[in-house]
Amino acid sequence: MSTALPAAVDLREVGLRDGLQLEAPIPLEAKLEILDAVAATGVRRVEVTSFVSRSAVPALADAEQIVAELDRWPGLEFSALVAGLGGARRAVAAGMPNLEYVISVSDGHSLANARRTTEDAVAATADIARLAHDAGGLCEAILAVAWDCPFDGPIPIRRTVEVARRAVGFGVDRLCLGDTIGTTVPGRLVTLVEAVREACPGVQVGVHLHNTRGSGLACVLAAVQIGVTQIDAAVGGLGGCPFAPGASGNIATEEVVYLLEGSGVATGLDLDRVLDAAAVVERAVGHDLPSNLYRAGGPPRPRSVTPAG
Amino acid sequence: MSTALPAAVDLREVGLRDGLQLEAPIPLEAKLEILDAVAATGVRRVEVTSFVSRSAVPALADAEQIVAELDRWPGLEFSALVAGLGGARRAVAAGMPNLEYVISVSDGHSLANARRTTEDAVAATADIARLAHDAGGLCEAILAVAWDCPFDGPIPIRRTVEVARRAVGFGVDRLCLGDTIGTTVPGRLVTLVEAVREACPGVQVGVHLHNTRGSGLACVLAAVQIGVTQIDAAVGGLGGCPFAPGASGNIATEEVVYLLEGSGVATGLDLDRVLDAAAVVERAVGHDLPSNLYRAGGPPRPRSVTPAG
Repeated sequence: MSTALPAAVDLREVGLRDGLQLEAPIPLEAKLEILDAVAATGVRRVEVTSFVSRSAVPALADAEQIVAELDRWPGLEFSALVAGLGGARRAVAAGMPNLEYVISVSDGHSLANARRTTEDAVAATADIARLAHDAGGLCEAILAVAWDCPFDGPIPIRRTVEVARRAVGFGVDRLCLGDTIGTTVPGRLVTLVEAVREACPGVQVGVHLHNTRGSGLACVLAAVQIGVTQIDAAVGGLGGCPFAPGASGNIATEEVVYLLEGSGVATGLDLDRVLDAAAVVERAVGHDLPSNLYRAGGPPRPRSVTPAG
Repeated sequence: MSTALPAAVDLREVGLRDGLQLEAPIPLEAKLEILDAVAATGVRRVEVTSFVSRSAVPALADAEQIVAELDRWPGLEFSALVAGLGGARRAVAAGMPNLEYVISVSDGHSLANARRTTEDAVAATADIARLAHDAGGLCEAILAVAWDCPFDGPIPIRRTVEVARRAVGFGVDRLCLGDTIGTTVPGRLVTLVEAVREACPGVQVGVHLHNTRGSGLACVLAAVQIGVTQIDAAVGGLGGCPFAPGASGNIATEEVVYLLEGSGVATGLDLDRVLDAAAVVERAVGHDLPSNLYRAGGPPRPRSVTPAG
């Protein structure tokens, strides 16, 4: 293991899904404005919505409508999250073949989130992967609560690894480890990523991190140091529950770009355009965003010397 | 360079100085209450105040008074920041022999902060170190704006290294690199720490970081990975200007403890006691603290399964 960093990473913008899902619903037009701003950042991959229960997640009830607009941005690779076969069918029918199938690795979270056990969620993988492939898309398995569950506590590594191994056996093309409640730290991140890689050789393993307890960006660094290049982030750090000030959001795209570009790792994103996009997001949701970098006004811009009088 | 982590680090609590210095003054009694809470965390080193202009920093105008109370905590190693010979004399006269002498490595910041050039600040080092030593204390040089200056922009590495080398030549016992405006990132942190170490063999080099742009904890990780064990942090992440919501504070002690202990690095601090101390600080300053971990209610505490109805 070394701290040599890869030359480049491939970020995925998840603000339109994981950022907005707990917000009060915003109009489709506002989402398209965000998409315009996100496209201008230079990001290549965008998680654009999820096909889940419209009553449980009203903020993303317009999944079909937003997917119908995506031809406007031919340079972007879009994907949508699904939590089961029904959502996968809706996504494909709507014209979205790239599926992120979320599997909670703890029964507690799986039951709360999708009303079924992890075992039942894993069993649906083959059908969902086939749907994506038949539609010409990719299927990624996102392993939710990969480190810790809010109900069941810390997840044994062998349990997450086993879900990963089986999902790959059922045909998913890549994996993403989700720190759903923002609890992991660099040491634990590295241990799990390496264990999953060993069990699933040749399969790309990405990470989906939250900054809830302040370790999000340090986890990005640790992940990148061991060669993880698939990293989720949300412009402005949007996400988490807006009604619980303590529940901070996704790691902020601009903070990831600032940290990595400043350390010599190319992201392909233009930091000033990411900050512009954060301003668009902030207007759309109507409240402050958690990103420190955004609130600080971006990178340092030296001013003239004005000695204290 | 490897990501093998040291077995332990030695944190310094700086909330009473760098955390409080821009706050509205609070009573001495409130500071002593914070000190009680800080002592209970298990931290070994505390930066307790600064001896600087009382009119410029009214929040720390009671430096003599707080130093007079420190016998209450015989297990702690206290130090105070000084910005020149006058402050150093005041500190020693007050009974505080351990001095942190802050030298701004840019002329722009040095003139704004201490009304003199870096050269003049460096020239005072020998006298200040001698004062500390004659009083039986240690003298640490804190190099402010070691990476970036708000006036002069990025600082050439050779400039910071040269200030470090000369300060050591003038007798300081250890060094601390200050990311005063919270701009550095892991790659730049490692480069400068290694350059300073090479120029000052055998001298301990610590870091003083801010989380202004979200990279603070990632910089802690990067520093620890290259064997830095002297790390400054403030309970609750207090610091920065309370009148500028974007200017976030020092890295939060509890976030450092959470990150490092969870990654197998001993800090000697009890996380729950650090969170208790943050609550004391929050009451004392009367406003929210920036620490994500504190606002999230601390580490995860699993609850019983309550599936979505």
